[in-house]
Amino acid sequence: MRKRPRSSEPDYAPRVQKLDHALCGLKLDSILITHLPNIRYLCGFTGSNGLLLSIRGKRTFFTDGRYTEQAEQEVTGTRVVVPKGSLIAEAAKLIAASKITRLGFEADRTTVTREQAIKKALPKSVKLTPTASVVDRIRMVKDEHELALIKEAVIMGADLLTPAIETIRPGVKESEVTAEIEYAARRWGAEAMSFETIVAAGVRSALPHGRASNALIPKRGFVILDLGVILHGYCSDMTRTVHVGSVPRRSREIFQAVLDAQLAATAAVKPGATAGDVDFAARSVLKRAKLDRYFIHSTGHGVGLEIHEQPRIARDQKEVLEPGMVITIEPGVYLPGEGGVRIEDMVVVTERGHQVLTPATKELLEL
Amino acid sequence: MRKRPRSSEPDYAPRVQKLDHALCGLKLDSILITHLPNIRYLCGFTGSNGLLLSIRGKRTFFTDGRYTEQAEQEVTGTRVVVPKGSLIAEAAKLIAASKITRLGFEADRTTVTREQAIKKALPKSVKLTPTASVVDRIRMVKDEHELALIKEAVIMGADLLTPAIETIRPGVKESEVTAEIEYAARRWGAEAMSFETIVAAGVRSALPHGRASNALIPKRGFVILDLGVILHGYCSDMTRTVHVGSVPRRSREIFQAVLDAQLAATAAVKPGATAGDVDFAARSVLKRAKLDRYFIHSTGHGVGLEIHEQPRIARDQKEVLEPGMVITIEPGVYLPGEGGVRIEDMVVVTERGHQVLTPATKELLEL
Repeated sequence: MRKRPRSSEPDYAPRVQKLDHALCGLKLDSILITHLPNIRYLCGFTGSNGLLLSIRGKRTFFTDGRYTEQAEQEVTGTRVVVPKGSLIAEAAKLIAASKITRLGFEADRTTVTREQAIKKALPKSVKLTPTASVVDRIRMVKDEHELALIKEAVIMGADLLTPAIETIRPGVKESEVTAEIEYAARRWGAEAMSFETIVAAGVRSALPHGRASNALIPKRGFVILDLGVILHGYCSDMTRTVHVGSVPRRSREIFQAVLDAQLAATAAVKPGATAGDVDFAARSVLKRAKLDRYFIHSTGHGVGLEIHEQPRIARDQKEVLEPGMVITIEPGVYLPGEGGVRIEDMVVVTERGHQVLTPATKELLEL
Repeated sequence: MRKRPRSSEPDYAPRVQKLDHALCGLKLDSILITHLPNIRYLCGFTGSNGLLLSIRGKRTFFTDGRYTEQAEQEVTGTRVVVPKGSLIAEAAKLIAASKITRLGFEADRTTVTREQAIKKALPKSVKLTPTASVVDRIRMVKDEHELALIKEAVIMGADLLTPAIETIRPGVKESEVTAEIEYAARRWGAEAMSFETIVAAGVRSALPHGRASNALIPKRGFVILDLGVILHGYCSDMTRTVHVGSVPRRSREIFQAVLDAQLAATAAVKPGATAGDVDFAARSVLKRAKLDRYFIHSTGHGVGLEIHEQPRIARDQKEVLEPGMVITIEPGVYLPGEGGVRIEDMVVVTERGHQVLTPATKELLEL
């Protein structure tokens, strides 16, 4: 019996089995993986340059001399080759020797220029065959190891609300709040933030993609905090909206409508539901509150090694949710010139429904 | 006479003139720009979604509803269109109406999947024609406005040595040093770091791409600090190597060799020299010191809106340096299992030679 790996050790065997299975469905027996998060997922390499070639279930990883030691330490279940010259030229030798006639490549992750360079390096007898999202789709469903790491990242992300809330007060710059958040994240061991931290106060909270600026937090109004960390390679993502000064009745109503939408969408998360169903649940609540036209983005997205992964939780998306998928649920309402509210949790699809991962309160905090 | 713009206002007219000139050389009269830094460079838009279409010298910028207000504020000299539906479908209408037969696209910035989607949206009469680095090559030579902003970013980057040095001492985690650096950068108004800050201490300084880890700074050894900020969209990049504890003679020799190589390469920077000449100058000094085989990366790269731009300052590169190019000069020596030294400045090519932008001392600091 195979020993069950501890959550601290990823088990690459089921991942590559899924890859082989997906390739079989595509009538391909070979693929060249170039997207680094996909390479990391399949063999563990975390550096910035590498190629993973899978030919009939046998994988070879190519990297350059800077990463000799690191590749030896990190790469598991895959042969490592460190050529003197070009990685693709070295891979082409193996391809030529294998006598394959078709080689899949990641068309949605490869530029046209790079495709041409790969074509040029390959033997003429090999047809380069576009594939899309083969590994990305496998990565949608997280394994036990990944879920454990994601939970750690999510908890650290939620803990960052404390330094944020301690810093927010009228007259402080948005960017100062960001500084405190990111400083704490680093001290606690985050590898990086998973995206540019958003602190958008007052009328700026109406900008759904407002980055933290040098604008001052006003005496009264919403402050949107949208932040995430990368820990052990995995991303967290969370949004909370707080209010400085006493909350006007209208603002409280808007907040409540967004919260209701967030809870309704979360309740819709279960195996068999589509991504579109979850989006629809959020949008319906906001429609009843006559706020749906101010909800101008999608409801969520997958999260894992990358901050934006599949599935997209958006209008009419047919993707069917499966246990192990980790997604954000983040409806928002933005009234131009006034302010906005967004509330976001990370949620994992379970056998019976879902589990909310983000442990932070969703009450409206008055600061 | 056209008023000379203040450095706080970019002048887009010469930039688009250069684009039109480059297209003329390629016998193209139209191009679709998809790479966001290129779009920003040509029209000022800083958001995350947009297309810039140039047809016979007339430019139209397409973005989505989230960016209506922002595009109005930012985009200069270019018509803005915010369609309800797909940007490329809207662009295709304009292309169809214009009766052009060939449309350039950024083949080195466009995935194969996206190229297919663009092809599908275009009228059948239009041939999508690959181009490479058209705008990137224009961006190599910085204008006055860009140089002013780059200098500001470089000065802030150099100032970050102070909090770094104040934090470095035996027993402190590398990541704590990073936290202090990034905290100061944020408080001083940096939009972000221009790349993941590197703090690599002791034997870890021998890893040329060692990220800051939870490893402790040892009692004695080199610490490499490689950091940069983004300010007003422009990147800085600087490396200094300091030493904790007294410096052994051999370490001092290695440091001196790297410094000599850095100074020699800098001295080689002038109009008419090739990128390869500059790289050769650094490599020759290290060869005389019998350290060249430990210099396992290239000597530098262009910097601007992106942290890695053209030209590459590497072995045998034929690119000829021109006034206004901004590059890094960053030779390094890495002795596996022992430690490493890297010293990096940003340098601008001037009419008469060069100017070193980075104001920080290159003395070996003993902490």
